[in-house]
Parts: sequence; structure tokens; C-alpha cells
Amino acid sequence: MTQFINRKEDIVAEAVDGLIAASGGRLARLDGYPHIRVILRTDWDRTRVALVSGGGSGHEPAHAGFVGKGMLTAAVCGDVFASPSVDAVLAGILAVTGPAGCLLIVKNYTGDRLNFGLAAERARAFGLKVRMVVVDDDIALPDLPQARGVAGTLFVHKIAGALAESGADLDTVTAAADRVIAGTKSIGMSLDTCTVPGSPKEQRIQSGKAELGLGIHGEAGVEQVDYTDAQSAMRMVADRLAAHMAPGRPHVAILNNLGGTSVLEMQILAHELVRSPIGGRLKHLVGPASLMTSLEMRGFSVSVYPASAEDLVALAAPTPLAAWPGLSTLVPVGVVELPDGLRPIRPVPSDHPPTRAFLTRCCEVFLKAEADLNALDAKAGDGDTGSTLAGAARALIGAMDRLPLADHTQLYRAIGLELSQTMGGSSGVLLAIFFAATGDAASSGQSQREAFKAGLARMQEIGGARMGDRTMIDALLPALEKLPEGLPAAAKAAREGANRTAGMTRANAGRSSYINAEQLRGQVDPGAEAVARLFEHLSA
Amino acid sequence: MTQFINRKEDIVAEAVDGLIAASGGRLARLDGYPHIRVILRTDWDRTRVALVSGGGSGHEPAHAGFVGKGMLTAAVCGDVFASPSVDAVLAGILAVTGPAGCLLIVKNYTGDRLNFGLAAERARAFGLKVRMVVVDDDIALPDLPQARGVAGTLFVHKIAGALAESGADLDTVTAAADRVIAGTKSIGMSLDTCTVPGSPKEQRIQSGKAELGLGIHGEAGVEQVDYTDAQSAMRMVADRLAAHMAPGRPHVAILNNLGGTSVLEMQILAHELVRSPIGGRLKHLVGPASLMTSLEMRGFSVSVYPASAEDLVALAAPTPLAAWPGLSTLVPVGVVELPDGLRPIRPVPSDHPPTRAFLTRCCEVFLKAEADLNALDAKAGDGDTGSTLAGAARALIGAMDRLPLADHTQLYRAIGLELSQTMGGSSGVLLAIFFAATGDAASSGQSQREAFKAGLARMQEIGGARMGDRTMIDALLPALEKLPEGLPAAAKAAREGANRTAGMTRANAGRSSYINAEQLRGQVDPGAEAVARLFEHLSA
Repeated sequence: MTQFINRKEDIVAEAVDGLIAASGGRLARLDGYPHIRVILRTDWDRTRVALVSGGGSGHEPAHAGFVGKGMLTAAVCGDVFASPSVDAVLAGILAVTGPAGCLLIVKNYTGDRLNFGLAAERARAFGLKVRMVVVDDDIALPDLPQARGVAGTLFVHKIAGALAESGADLDTVTAAADRVIAGTKSIGMSLDTCTVPGSPKEQRIQSGKAELGLGIHGEAGVEQVDYTDAQSAMRMVADRLAAHMAPGRPHVAILNNLGGTSVLEMQILAHELVRSPIGGRLKHLVGPASLMTSLEMRGFSVSVYPASAEDLVALAAPTPLAAWPGLSTLVPVGVVELPDGLRPIRPVPSDHPPTRAFLTRCCEVFLKAEADLNALDAKAGDGDTGSTLAGAARALIGAMDRLPLADHTQLYRAIGLELSQTMGGSSGVLLAIFFAATGDAASSGQSQREAFKAGLARMQEIGGARMGDRTMIDALLPALEKLPEGLPAAAKAAREGANRTAGMTRANAGRSSYINAEQLRGQVDPGAEAVARLFEHLSA
Repeated sequence: MTQFINRKEDIVAEAVDGLIAASGGRLARLDGYPHIRVILRTDWDRTRVALVSGGGSGHEPAHAGFVGKGMLTAAVCGDVFASPSVDAVLAGILAVTGPAGCLLIVKNYTGDRLNFGLAAERARAFGLKVRMVVVDDDIALPDLPQARGVAGTLFVHKIAGALAESGADLDTVTAAADRVIAGTKSIGMSLDTCTVPGSPKEQRIQSGKAELGLGIHGEAGVEQVDYTDAQSAMRMVADRLAAHMAPGRPHVAILNNLGGTSVLEMQILAHELVRSPIGGRLKHLVGPASLMTSLEMRGFSVSVYPASAEDLVALAAPTPLAAWPGLSTLVPVGVVELPDGLRPIRPVPSDHPPTRAFLTRCCEVFLKAEADLNALDAKAGDGDTGSTLAGAARALIGAMDRLPLADHTQLYRAIGLELSQTMGGSSGVLLAIFFAATGDAASSGQSQREAFKAGLARMQEIGGARMGDRTMIDALLPALEKLPEGLPAAAKAAREGANRTAGMTRANAGRSSYINAEQLRGQVDPGAEAVARLFEHLSA
């Protein structure tokens, strides 16, 4: 599979420029391309503690997407999955650090520790106050003395960011970052590997398997597990986290999309997180969102942190960053009673022998035409127009005793209701709309013919069919136009209209629009034929 | 590939519950599971025009993710890629519509038009004022009389939403929606198909190909095109849009992730959009973001709309919805000059014959030990420790004339700087950090030994190595501890420490941590050996 990139060596610079272009002037970059890729806030005045983070690229929106008011001051971007150089980090530090000092927030990878660490030393030689914290929230490898830094880093960015923005000093911000790091635990699961640009995709995970405890640089998961469904996947992740969660204080969770998981699936995973074994211990949630991705990896991670009241204030503090999804309180799903009116109020039945006879005659037309119409439809559709109309006719005959036959306005609506509940498919819904809108128009005082025309107009508006589109409209509209001249004239117009459909080799609406021209040539549209037969029968 | 779902029939209900759980109480749902899945604002009082949208699921965050203050009032969710039922839509309308009426915003698909259309009729029978607009922004199929509704729908949601929130009446909101629909044009491109839950993935797009003008329900694109890179991909999309863009007024663009494209790639596509043939006609951008997805499709779409001044106000109006990325003004990428200080200030050279002699002696140790240390390292690493140290020694000897030999405090920093610029790999950076931090400590008045210990502590903090981790620390720390007793005592401690590393079969830091125990047994760590040889030589 290909990717939306250009030259491999330009990936990061182009992505940075795209981010800055879309920032509305909030962000700028240092003039250090190609090697120095540092993103800065444009509203920064060096009066507060600067927060600088970064590392390898491929984890977007981390870290550059979190540069802005209330979060990072600058981000230093390495190549995909590779640490930035000492010079790049130093440039970032020097560009934003004032008398209040600077805190470097680094994920625990050797390259990042070394390059950020040496840059800090060089910055200190200029007399700058520079501190560094190392995030190691990953619990996937319990025996590894150097746990990796993954999505829990976002807790550090946001909490330290809010404190720095509020004017806290370097000691306070550093202490908060250390406290957050000590309390944050994360683990992820993935159904597929990511595709490192320029490298073939590693087909490591078989269907029916998942990797638990993966890294965010394509490292294999700690174990391959059997994958069955979202619920058991989240349970595995929750069980691992549960063993590391401090008792007592409720936790905040980050539900992170590793990059290629659909938003639909992430919502299901949010549901599963809430009902997982640790769901009861979570009081707030950040996400689901793509925060610390691994390119387009189809996976997720969960990070948990036992936030204090002050931490919650910091996590909830406003920031203009679209990449930060905000902090939500987890509350039970609110369920609102269904509104009245879904069970439609049935009109009071009434009898009116002429109407009963008329309706019955109409229905009989469709019963008789069933086979013919099916045969016509078989040439242009799926051969069920006759059965559909006959079924509706049978239903109407069966419903005759509960119809308001003596009140024509109510009758239209009642017929529409019957049709909508008994006929399947588009044509059923369209006829129901036709009768409902006709009833609506009649109730507002329009003549029967005007009401029918209003119904037809609504049906066309909803269905999208116009004259010439090879539908029942081609017979029905001419018939209604001629109705003032009597039923025979209307019937003649309907028949002519129906016959014209045989010459229409291009259907623009309805099912026949998927059939090619040669198949349609010479065939009358079954819907138009039904209308013609109805009018012919009524005028006979 | 598997997906993060459970039973296919529960996908939408579980996703809705996940969304609501993560909404912090902003959202609720109607009590109509399993068939009626309607999401509502909990702060809704029916005093303003209600906006109801929806359709098939699989397009998350559309539409449920856009329910909230300033956007939709309710969303009605069908199964994946299938319209919701008339009853479900009617329930949504009835639940939120008050005297101000209701506008239905429907994407142009037959099923949605019919079900929303009939629900509107049934709602009108209750005397409710209900209007419906149909979004048809897709330009992929120029001859299709019924263009599809795709991501441009978001313009309608946001502009109509802001108007409704501000108290505009139904006529005004409907007219605005119609105006936005008339002006909005969209087209997408994809590198891979989406995976419909429960169906095998269609392998339709070969590597090196892309689909232009795809649908958001897995429909094939209008054409398969050759794919080369992000720039030409965006150019194709831009060229199609250009033909439909009204002259004059600048446009707003939506850059939409179809679900499975990495955030990194979306940023590159934002960069390409800005420099595409239509870039100059775009003044504002929404995204890049996942707005109207097609499950996890690896693709993007661009929608453009010539927004008026009032439209821009509506698009920029605040909303608490995390799924709405906000409106940004497209401005040229701001480039800030590199800070001073990247070219380090070199200390003034000075001579001091005893120091020169001492340093030269130290360097000679490493030159002599090159082959031995390489041989040791070949057993536990990649066999270059000797060459690395010898290279650094040669560089220091070569730099001797520009070092501040007479100022020991400056000398440490200068040595650190030389090492950081000449030694590759982790050990070079670590030694540079050691000397830089030592110089820092010395400059604050600490004794030489205390300064060395401070340097070592910083090196350990950054490198993560502790005593017993099979590194140079195992020799260096004991030597510094014994230094007050004289060089011979320090040399003895260094040798004992180095020899102890031969018994350490588990390396916890550095490169040897990737080597198994049996390979390490009996081998002295080359870094520790180098330290031991240095002290032995100095004390001899």
C-alpha cells in the first residue's frame, strides 16, 4: 500500500509546514530546515516557564500538535521514529527559554534522553535554568528497568502546561511533572503493524491475533494474544492496568487511537473501557482521540493516572488546541423516554359505502396486475413491483374496516400510514409520503386534485424523480394534469405516459438507474404501467 | 484483519453508548434500543430551531459526534452504511422539536431521503413545522443527476447550527442551509477500501493506484488513477474542485480524513492543499481532521465553499464539540530566525604544560587499548568501543592547541564540546554530558572530585545506568569514591569494578542489554575495562 507522502527525507518538514499552515498563525517554526525542525508558539513572551518536548516523528499530533497556549511552548521533531539532534533540541530551548527557565519533557528512549540531555547541558552553559523529566509510563515490559514513554506523556504535557501557563515556577512545574510521571501507567493493543515510510509493511500479526503491550515505533508487542472481540481486548488491557493502579483515588484515563483505528471502533472501545473491570475506578476520560499515534497502526492504548483535585483543574483548563480533546467526566449514559407519537393516533373508523367500493376497485386492479407487473420489473429491476403493489392492496382491503372512509382528508393520511407500515422498499415509502402529503394539503383546504398534485410534488422532492426519469411519475403527472377533463382523458394521458417510458433508455432515479440502456429499451416501466392500468380501470 | 467490535448487531448501539459516556453528560439517548438510536443534547429546551441529522453509521464522528451546543440538536443513527428507519427519525424529531420547528439535514442517498422524508410527513401530521434539506456536494460523478452527500455536510451542520443556536427562525436557518448546499463542492481520494464489519475486505485498489471520486460507503471511485505521491494526489483533487469553484470570493476548505490515514499524512496533505493550484483561493481551513469518515478508509477528501462574512462568523462560532476542529485562517508559515548560541562560544585557548601532558597521557591509554577494547566489545556489542574511544582520543590530541588548558573549569566544558562533536553513538553523547556537567559543577565552586561525581550523576540520570548494570559506571564510580586515598587506591577500585562486570550476565542499560546472558558470562564490559586501564596507567 502506498502512503500520502512525497520524498522520504521531506516527510517531517512538510508535515510541520502543514501543521503550521493550519494553525491560523498560532504557530511558527525555526529557520533551520532541513535538520532543525522546531515548532514554536507565536504568542510566547518568555515570561513563564517554557515547556519543550519532542522526539521522533510518526506520533502525530504528538508533539508538535500540542504546542500552544496551556500546553507546550515548543516541540522538536526528529525524523520518523528517530530522535532529533542535540543542535535541534538546543535551538528549541534557546528560542523559548527566558529567566523563568525551561522544562524538557522527554519520552524514555535512549536517543531522546541523550540528545535532550546533552542539549540541556549546552543550554546550562549559557546560564539557562533547564530541567528535564523522563516519561516512562509503559507497563508492557514489567521486568525492563527502563520503561518506555507512550501516550501517558499527554498527562504531563497538559498538567505541566496548565501550571506553566498560570505562572508557576520551574520547581513547581518540574515537581508536578515528576508526580504525574510517577503515577501514570499505560498499555496498548494492536491488530496490525504500522507502515514505516519507505519500508515494506511487516506482516507480523495474523488474523485472529492481536499484540498486547506494543511499542509506538513498530516494536513487536510483548505477547501475541488471541483476539476475539472488543470486550475481551479491553478486558486484557484493563487487567494489566489494574495491577498497577494505586488504590483509593479515582483515576483519569486517556483512550488513545494509535492512528488507524476507525472512529466507530474507538467509540466502541470507550464503551468497553467504561464497562471494563477498571471502569468503576475511572472518573474522567480524555478521548477517545488520536493523541500519541504510531503512524497508521490499527490499535489503541489506555493510560491511567490518579489525578488530584489540582491535577483535574489543570487537565480541564482551556486550550485552543484542536488535538487536545478535553477532559470529560464519566457519567452513566443518560436515557430519555421515547416521545409520544411514535404509536400514531389512528383516526376514528367510519364507513362510507361509495368510498369503500372505490377503494376496493383500485385495490383489485393491483391484485389482477401482479404477474404482469412482476414480469415487466424482471427486465429492469428485481421483479417484485407486482408483488409489492398486490401486497399493499391486500393490506388495504384488510384494513378497510378501521379506515376513516367518511372523512377523505383523514383517509389520505390513514392510507399513507397503512402503506408505510406494510410496504417494504422505496416505492412503499414514496407512496406513503404521497398520501401523507396529499392528506396534509387536503386538510389545509385544497381541492382533491390540488392535494394530489401537492402529494406528488412532495414525493418528487423526496424521491428525486422528474418527468422523463422512467418512473411512475411519467404516467401519474400527465393523468393528474388531465383529471379536470374527466377520468377517460386522465386514463389516456396515463397510458401515453406509460408507453413513453419504453423509449427511455436512461433511468435517472429509482432502481432502474443501475441497469444499462439496452436492457431497458422497449420495456414499459412497471410503476408507470401500474398507474396507467389504475386509471384505465377507473375510467372503464 | 479483525476489528475492535463485538456482535455485528450491537456495533452502533455500543458506539453510541461510548460516545455518550465520553460526553461528560452533554449527551443522552432515547430509550429505543435496539432499533431507535437517537442522540440528543441534554441542555436542549426546544426554544430554538432544532437541527436533526443522521443516516447510516460508519462515518463517525458524523453525525452523532456533532450533536451539541452550536451544531446539531439530535442525530439519528442507522446501521453501518444503512439509513435509520422512519420511526427512528420521527422519534428524533418529536424528541427535540418545539414551536420554533425543526430542520432535517440529510445526505443525498435514496434511503435517507425516503426515511427522513416520511418521518417529516408524520411529524407534520402532529402540527410540527419540519423542513428538510438534502446535501449533494459530491462532484465525483458529473453526469449523475443525484450527487451524493459527503463531507461538505459539515459546512451545513456548523453554519445552520450557529444560526439556530443564535435564535434564528426556521426560514432563516433553512435558507442558509440551502445556500451552503448550493455552494459546497467535495471530492475524495483513497489508497485503500474500508472494511465493512462482518464482510471480507475488498482488495480493489492495487499498490501504485488510487481511487479518485470515491463514495463513503465503499462504492468504487469514479476512476482508478496512478498514484505517485501526496503532491500529485492533491493536485488531481484540486483540479477537479477548481472547475466547480465560483470565481471571486475566497473559499473555506474542509480537509477530511476518511478514517485510516495517519495524522502525519494528513498534515502533509494540508501542506499540499495550501500549495495546490487552488491554494491561493483558500482563505480558511477546517481540519485536517476525521469528520465524515468511511470506517478506516485510507483516504482524504476536500470540500470547498465560498463563505460570506456571516458564514465565517458562524463557522468560527465556539462549540464545545471535540470533533469540530475549529476554523483556521490560512496564513503563510511563519519562520523565526535561529537563536544565537547554536555555534558554541569556544573558550579562549590557553596553555598549561602539566595539564597538556596529563591529557595527552590519558589519550594515549585509549589509543593503545583500541584493539583490546574492540575485541571485548565484539563479544557483547558491535565491536567498536575501542575505535570510538581511540577516535575521541585522536580528536582531543588534535584539538589540544585550542583548549583552555590553563582554566580547568572551562576545560571540562571544552572537552565535552569536542567529544559531542566528534564521537558518534550513545557513549560519545554520554561522555560529553559527563564533562559538560562536571564543568558546570566546577564552575559553581565544587572540588574536582565533587565535580566529577556530579558529572557522573548527571550521566547516570540521562543514561539510566546504575551500579551493577554492566557499564563503565561499574569501574568509574568506585574509582571516584577511592580517589581521596590516592590514585593507586582509585586504580585498584576501578580494576575490581571492571572485573566484577564479567560476572554480570544481565545488562540493564546500554547496548549489551539486548545480548543474552550466556554470551556475556566471563566477559569484562569494554567501557569498564577502558576506565580501569586509564586509572591504572595514571597511577603507574
